[in-house]
Amino acid sequence: MQKRVFMVAGYNTVSLGSGRSEFNPKKENPGIEHYMMEAGRATLNMINGAKNVDESVVGNFMASRFNNQAHLAAFIPSIDKDLLYKPSVRVEGACASGGLAVVTAVKSILAGTADVVLAIGVEVQNTVKAMYGADHLALADYHKKRQAGHAYFFPGKFSDRAGAYANAYGEEYMRKGLAQWYANCIENARLCETAQEYENKNEHLIETGLMPPDGSRFVDHLNFTDCSKVSDGASAIAVVSEEGLKRIGISAREAIELVGFAQTEDNIMEEPGDPLELSTTKVSVQQAMQMAGIKKEQLATVETHDCFTIAGLLATEAFGFADKGKGAAFVANGHTSRDGQIPFNTTGGLIAWGHPTGATGVHQVVTILEQLSGKAGQAQIPIPDDKPYGMTVNMGGNDKTVVSMVFKKCD
Amino acid sequence: MQKRVFMVAGYNTVSLGSGRSEFNPKKENPGIEHYMMEAGRATLNMINGAKNVDESVVGNFMASRFNNQAHLAAFIPSIDKDLLYKPSVRVEGACASGGLAVVTAVKSILAGTADVVLAIGVEVQNTVKAMYGADHLALADYHKKRQAGHAYFFPGKFSDRAGAYANAYGEEYMRKGLAQWYANCIENARLCETAQEYENKNEHLIETGLMPPDGSRFVDHLNFTDCSKVSDGASAIAVVSEEGLKRIGISAREAIELVGFAQTEDNIMEEPGDPLELSTTKVSVQQAMQMAGIKKEQLATVETHDCFTIAGLLATEAFGFADKGKGAAFVANGHTSRDGQIPFNTTGGLIAWGHPTGATGVHQVVTILEQLSGKAGQAQIPIPDDKPYGMTVNMGGNDKTVVSMVFKKCD
Repeated sequence: MQKRVFMVAGYNTVSLGSGRSEFNPKKENPGIEHYMMEAGRATLNMINGAKNVDESVVGNFMASRFNNQAHLAAFIPSIDKDLLYKPSVRVEGACASGGLAVVTAVKSILAGTADVVLAIGVEVQNTVKAMYGADHLALADYHKKRQAGHAYFFPGKFSDRAGAYANAYGEEYMRKGLAQWYANCIENARLCETAQEYENKNEHLIETGLMPPDGSRFVDHLNFTDCSKVSDGASAIAVVSEEGLKRIGISAREAIELVGFAQTEDNIMEEPGDPLELSTTKVSVQQAMQMAGIKKEQLATVETHDCFTIAGLLATEAFGFADKGKGAAFVANGHTSRDGQIPFNTTGGLIAWGHPTGATGVHQVVTILEQLSGKAGQAQIPIPDDKPYGMTVNMGGNDKTVVSMVFKKCD
Repeated sequence: MQKRVFMVAGYNTVSLGSGRSEFNPKKENPGIEHYMMEAGRATLNMINGAKNVDESVVGNFMASRFNNQAHLAAFIPSIDKDLLYKPSVRVEGACASGGLAVVTAVKSILAGTADVVLAIGVEVQNTVKAMYGADHLALADYHKKRQAGHAYFFPGKFSDRAGAYANAYGEEYMRKGLAQWYANCIENARLCETAQEYENKNEHLIETGLMPPDGSRFVDHLNFTDCSKVSDGASAIAVVSEEGLKRIGISAREAIELVGFAQTEDNIMEEPGDPLELSTTKVSVQQAMQMAGIKKEQLATVETHDCFTIAGLLATEAFGFADKGKGAAFVANGHTSRDGQIPFNTTGGLIAWGHPTGATGVHQVVTILEQLSGKAGQAQIPIPDDKPYGMTVNMGGNDKTVVSMVFKKCD
């Protein structure tokens, strides 16, 4: 990278939806403009005002269907009048839209067109029932393939992956891993006030996670608890240069440094070559770690895109923490738990923090910022001195767009 | 700019829709993936293959409604297998999506993450009848304002502007300017084989343009001929560094250099302060010209966003070619014609070349590339030695997002 790039001043709104006691699906809930304002203003307050911002980026997947609203970048000047007439753009790559927003902001810093970029991810999905929402989200895959697909399109796609995994390595073996992934997520979410499952009181998480799927009610190889939440929310962060840090008056210690990133694109018109592998994720993680010049053993924590529990298992394999087919055991044995060998998704991930799709990639970076800078509150994990790195993996579609980022704690 | 940036290898598909003899609205027409492939492959052929490409950007406004398809960046690897696993992103800013695609590509060059970026703009809109299409395009404005708006939302918005202009300066005075703008567009389109109005045989263009609008059939102050076309199409271009030019083996003479650009954002939640002015466009044009260090008198040609003829008139005022209220006379007097003081939209603009919304911003750059490099064929205008510059203005929504770019002919 031709310049140093830092992330600072992260903010997450509550992930609103089923599970949150303040959520009532029958009432009108806050609109997408509310979420952009809440998250944007919170980050602006932390960086001493919008006057310090040179550019903005919005990550959003599907407001054009969920909210009958496109052109989201034009809401940026509504956040603060000091953003009027400054550059702004919306980026989209399905559920990787948030990660793309951060990377797009990074490029503006590297390009020298900005020293401070406001990056916001946002999605408001509870405007329709979950089944219709699934149909909107299905637009992340190739339209010509969808007609013959499942009614719940993406749950169906990942159910197919789970089915292949069960077939190759055993249903019960896999289910233990999925159940543990689910339990870890809920336990982590209980430590984070903005998480959608923060108030989850279930004392029998493993038992819940172990329940056999019923294909006649949903999909063949996954339960509802194996799926990420239907969420409304926004996350914001400031992406800044060294000059930008000075301008906003924040010490590097409050920030994290981006040391590697990858934007990795696969062909949407083709089915995955091997359903047992997140092959694009694997390439992307390697690209980002290579750029950072680090090994996976130097990571203190990872935020990965567990849109479904099976994607969590497969991610441990894509990273190489577990060999192919061993991810279920790796997770079941507690290695991805918050006190395990490599804590994943320490505030609940997509399964339990929530998955406001276009916001997720930004939320992941905010979580890594909080953990590496010691601001994760109750959810804080120890960051060992020899593991000063954290990583995010944000995925769009069925492993088609992947944005991976490696961050380093600042001293 | 911390690096020199060039545009080269531009390509436009036909702008397909009413007016083209090969268009049949009752048959199935080529899909969005077809257009991306045609334009993308044509540009790749001109730059000696996809192996030379580091990154790609897609500009698209509304495939999620017109084509039931999001996640367009994941079609990039379908264009050529050498694009697999390389960075790709879709950007959106309503009808300014194409301009944003080019600017996003420019930032990757400046950022040093790429030396060659493939930028594609695409939109396929004839999948629905024009009236439903107008409803999709209305998502470019604030959803809470739309319910009380016109049935044809954006024609209504610009009809309101035309009404204000007529009220301030005279209906007949304005109508003469609009009619001349329309006539210029058709005449220019007849010189460009890909233009939607290429085959237009009307011998009474001015008379057609002078017809009084009938608000009971459409909107109060505009005719259908004052509106841009409903178009399917794609445009592609390579955005490259000096290093990139060497890699693709093309001389700078075949390229144009970007010497100034602006991405200018206004607040979508507010109505225009003065309907008689494209105030965001005015700011944007100034920003871009200031960055380029040029005056408007040095421009040989301009491609402006004439989504409606009234937007063309107002653009001449936003540029300062005409004083406020004098744009209609400036146009009626032939100053924007191809042999006039400052030729605008030399291949027909949005009115007559066509307006495949997300492609338009890229199409504009391709047109400037063709004119400044002497490759505009029948549509070629003279480029005087003391006017080596051309400019594009791409607008999203009702003057909310504006992307302006200044290009210089290479010697």
